[in-house]
Amino acid sequence: MKDGDCLFCKIIAEEIPADVIFDRGGVIAFRDVNPQAPLHALVVPKDHVRDAAAVDASHGSLLVELIGAANEIAEADGVDASGYRLVLNVGADAGQTVFHLHLHVIGGRPMAWPPG
Amino acid sequence: MKDGDCLFCKIIAEEIPADVIFDRGGVIAFRDVNPQAPLHALVVPKDHVRDAAAVDASHGSLLVELIGAANEIAEADGVDASGYRLVLNVGADAGQTVFHLHLHVIGGRPMAWPPG
Repeated sequence: MKDGDCLFCKIIAEEIPADVIFDRGGVIAFRDVNPQAPLHALVVPKDHVRDAAAVDASHGSLLVELIGAANEIAEADGVDASGYRLVLNVGADAGQTVFHLHLHVIGGRPMAWPPG
Repeated sequence: MKDGDCLFCKIIAEEIPADVIFDRGGVIAFRDVNPQAPLHALVVPKDHVRDAAAVDASHGSLLVELIGAANEIAEADGVDASGYRLVLNVGADAGQTVFHLHLHVIGGRPMAWPPG
């Protein structure tokens, strides 16, 4: 299912370019255009899911794929031992700007607390 | 499976008190003792899983439960419309201090970017 007005659906459809670093099964990942750390990638389901609030019982294997991809990307970028942060934003207070579920994978530097 | 030296396993076993706000199926949630926002809860699997890096194909329904619990907590605390951030920390750079998978649910105020 695609949403014709969705930026990430357009990236998945290769209508808009992105620095894709992972593409397998139901997920794709690409580097954030405004990286906040040496590693900053977005792992995204190929089917349009609005956000984490829209996750339901049908999404189990998709969630495994999303986190598995994040772990593989962290390893490929050499931050699996130093650590990384996974972030899902829901709504305005969290700064969500694209309404297509995306897991931020951030690593390669020490991160502060709170997480924003 | 419990890990006898794990703080969160002790909370789950009720050996250490916590402000538990959700307990259903395979997950429990309690408020963070050092809250970083009006809502700051930790959603935790009852079985000991080290962190997101240890997630495998067997964890699909657990991940659905974790995110579903986070969504319910956000709604119960009245931040489902204003937004919330979900965070998983892996390793030292992310500041992981308890090595039992926990999903931070943070809301009730605008959050900054980057997320730490």
